[in-house]
Amino acid sequence: MKTIQDDFPILSVLENGKRLVYLDNAATTQKPLAVLNAVESYNKQDNANPHRGVYELGARATKAHEDSRSIVSGFLNASTDEIIFTQNTTESLNLVAYSYGMEFLKEGDEIVLSVAEHHSNLVPWQRVSKVTGAKLVYLYPDAFGHLTEEELDQKITSKTRLIAVAQVSNVLGIEIPVASIVRRARKAGAVVVLDCAQSVPHMPVDVKALDVDFAAFSGHKLYAPMGIGVLYGKKEILDKMPPFLTGGDMIGNVHEQSSTYAEVPRRFEAGTRNVGGEVGLAAAIGYLNSLGWDNIQNHERDLMIRALNGLAEIPHITVYGDLSPDKRHGVIAFNVEDVHPHDTASLLDSDGITIRAGHHCAQPLMEYLKINSCVRASFGIYNTPEDVDALINSLKNVRRWMGYGS
Amino acid sequence: MKTIQDDFPILSVLENGKRLVYLDNAATTQKPLAVLNAVESYNKQDNANPHRGVYELGARATKAHEDSRSIVSGFLNASTDEIIFTQNTTESLNLVAYSYGMEFLKEGDEIVLSVAEHHSNLVPWQRVSKVTGAKLVYLYPDAFGHLTEEELDQKITSKTRLIAVAQVSNVLGIEIPVASIVRRARKAGAVVVLDCAQSVPHMPVDVKALDVDFAAFSGHKLYAPMGIGVLYGKKEILDKMPPFLTGGDMIGNVHEQSSTYAEVPRRFEAGTRNVGGEVGLAAAIGYLNSLGWDNIQNHERDLMIRALNGLAEIPHITVYGDLSPDKRHGVIAFNVEDVHPHDTASLLDSDGITIRAGHHCAQPLMEYLKINSCVRASFGIYNTPEDVDALINSLKNVRRWMGYGS
Repeated sequence: MKTIQDDFPILSVLENGKRLVYLDNAATTQKPLAVLNAVESYNKQDNANPHRGVYELGARATKAHEDSRSIVSGFLNASTDEIIFTQNTTESLNLVAYSYGMEFLKEGDEIVLSVAEHHSNLVPWQRVSKVTGAKLVYLYPDAFGHLTEEELDQKITSKTRLIAVAQVSNVLGIEIPVASIVRRARKAGAVVVLDCAQSVPHMPVDVKALDVDFAAFSGHKLYAPMGIGVLYGKKEILDKMPPFLTGGDMIGNVHEQSSTYAEVPRRFEAGTRNVGGEVGLAAAIGYLNSLGWDNIQNHERDLMIRALNGLAEIPHITVYGDLSPDKRHGVIAFNVEDVHPHDTASLLDSDGITIRAGHHCAQPLMEYLKINSCVRASFGIYNTPEDVDALINSLKNVRRWMGYGS
Repeated sequence: MKTIQDDFPILSVLENGKRLVYLDNAATTQKPLAVLNAVESYNKQDNANPHRGVYELGARATKAHEDSRSIVSGFLNASTDEIIFTQNTTESLNLVAYSYGMEFLKEGDEIVLSVAEHHSNLVPWQRVSKVTGAKLVYLYPDAFGHLTEEELDQKITSKTRLIAVAQVSNVLGIEIPVASIVRRARKAGAVVVLDCAQSVPHMPVDVKALDVDFAAFSGHKLYAPMGIGVLYGKKEILDKMPPFLTGGDMIGNVHEQSSTYAEVPRRFEAGTRNVGGEVGLAAAIGYLNSLGWDNIQNHERDLMIRALNGLAEIPHITVYGDLSPDKRHGVIAFNVEDVHPHDTASLLDSDGITIRAGHHCAQPLMEYLKINSCVRASFGIYNTPEDVDALINSLKNVRRWMGYGS
């Protein structure tokens, strides 16, 4: 019988001569044939510059571009004119920082973000803060990695104008209380920027139900190719924002000394779009839909339970954040006592197991956790119980390999 | 015998039931199997997040990323640390506008650009002008489309701080006198930003020999996939520029309230890169090198001579710019008297010939030429004498089809 694994050619590649156990899905995911074939088909049959050609091929490219937008808008439960294609989450968040933050924030305002933010949802706000004078206020998770109601009450105030938070931390894997945050944001008159890079691969995200103002994610963490990202923005907010990148396609009329700009979303899509990437993203969404979210979530929950149980049986391992499998989505960050995370990752690699070691683009969180770095195993739809067992069995040997005895 | 055309699967697709005659190469090019296969191979064998994984697969992805940078730097005769990967020319030019223009230009300074600039090398400078107070000064081509020495003398002055020009106009197809411009820029103490989107597909570009400060181009106009672009910048200038997009990978150390940034080029490459696109671009460069620039230029010159001679024999056609084939690179823009450019393009499409109609993202040039729009035929390595003949033969019928008699 055909398995999900059969859909991913790279899973049959060897890692250090062993079966590849790919557990770095939070960094990037592998691509199914459905995605690779869709991109190939676009390039072999439909490739042209959309919006620009008065010819059949150009019409097909334009249709591919707009159909992809429509599939993404369905995926997030947004309108098509609220979906902006970018190259990745980072660009999406920078777009909001430059076109909303730099424009509408000022001294006396406060930007609230979590200390667990990925650098891409943190460094842009540092720059907005520096330029506008708006103050950065940090939310700190409790000992289990959760943002408490008390913490939200204390930090989200009448001064708050923007709240930038990841729906799921790329280190802790824990979902933040989006509804609580949005409720307080509405009261404060603040906008909410939700980094969904680590949530969309693991749960349905309905931007209308969440009522967030912006949402960003990357295709490459959702089984699509690299080079394609998405920004959702509420239409009425996008409408009042100035452009970010400027150039072809995003204009109304250009004269020598001044220009007018196109309506959203085109106002924010300057230059030739990555239509191949868009088609790949649409195919990835189609692939996930064909698997079904219930199946995906049940499968990933089973892996999480197996992994957390396995880790609990190994001495000298510290897992960061809540140990309940229901609270985690895709990610387990941990350290092996007395072993440098890079050594742990290297040793596992010799068993064919790819996990990530480092600060995971979340240095302020590392500082808060009082660690320099950690290792992270992150799961996707193609991981199996055998992958988890391989991880656990290999981890059992790490301290012995490093000379600490069994 | 195998032909170049055999390398491009899309050329066997039909356009309106006819053989596809693809003459919109200045908008985007088609991709050879060498490129499609390289991207496929990356995705099926080497895909991981570069710089982030302490494992074999991650090392292969990092190698793919850095090898591609090395191939691009060789292509432009630059150093690897002078090559920044972006998503397209537009982002490359916006990076210079934001990180150099916004930072180093001020009131009293002058930005010199040609009225023939593509919007992507024009609208960003309008915004820099608006924010910094620097004045926009336009170069106007003569009746043949050339920038004269007199015009350069008059416009490039001691006030000039930045000159932003396309090496080859996407409408006129004419190469500007880069050496003359750079000589005056050096005297004025100005930097030169060269938009090479329309030059790199048709001629070797040596940024060291040209001595420009920045150069930008897109992969998708160079037979590579969409979604990948390049910015070259002189190392000593890049070194003093602040980052543009911020987030993962471009940082040194991130604390809650401040960050330090990585060295160039990584300072300008925020978030996960489009490694698949980079690999495709490197493969496209390899493909062009295997054809050889002499062969490419001879072939395209023959097409240009055939096309210009053919057009000269059709009455009621106005070609814009110098009619000498030696002055033109890849592009012929023209109009058929009394026929709307969109009608011309539509009629040709019914013969399977794809040309572009519109303002070609160059509205100020249209205004200068006193036209609203025009049609443009643009050539690439896979076009044949038969393609040119099809264009000419179809054009002969346009006025008759529109009811003007033969």
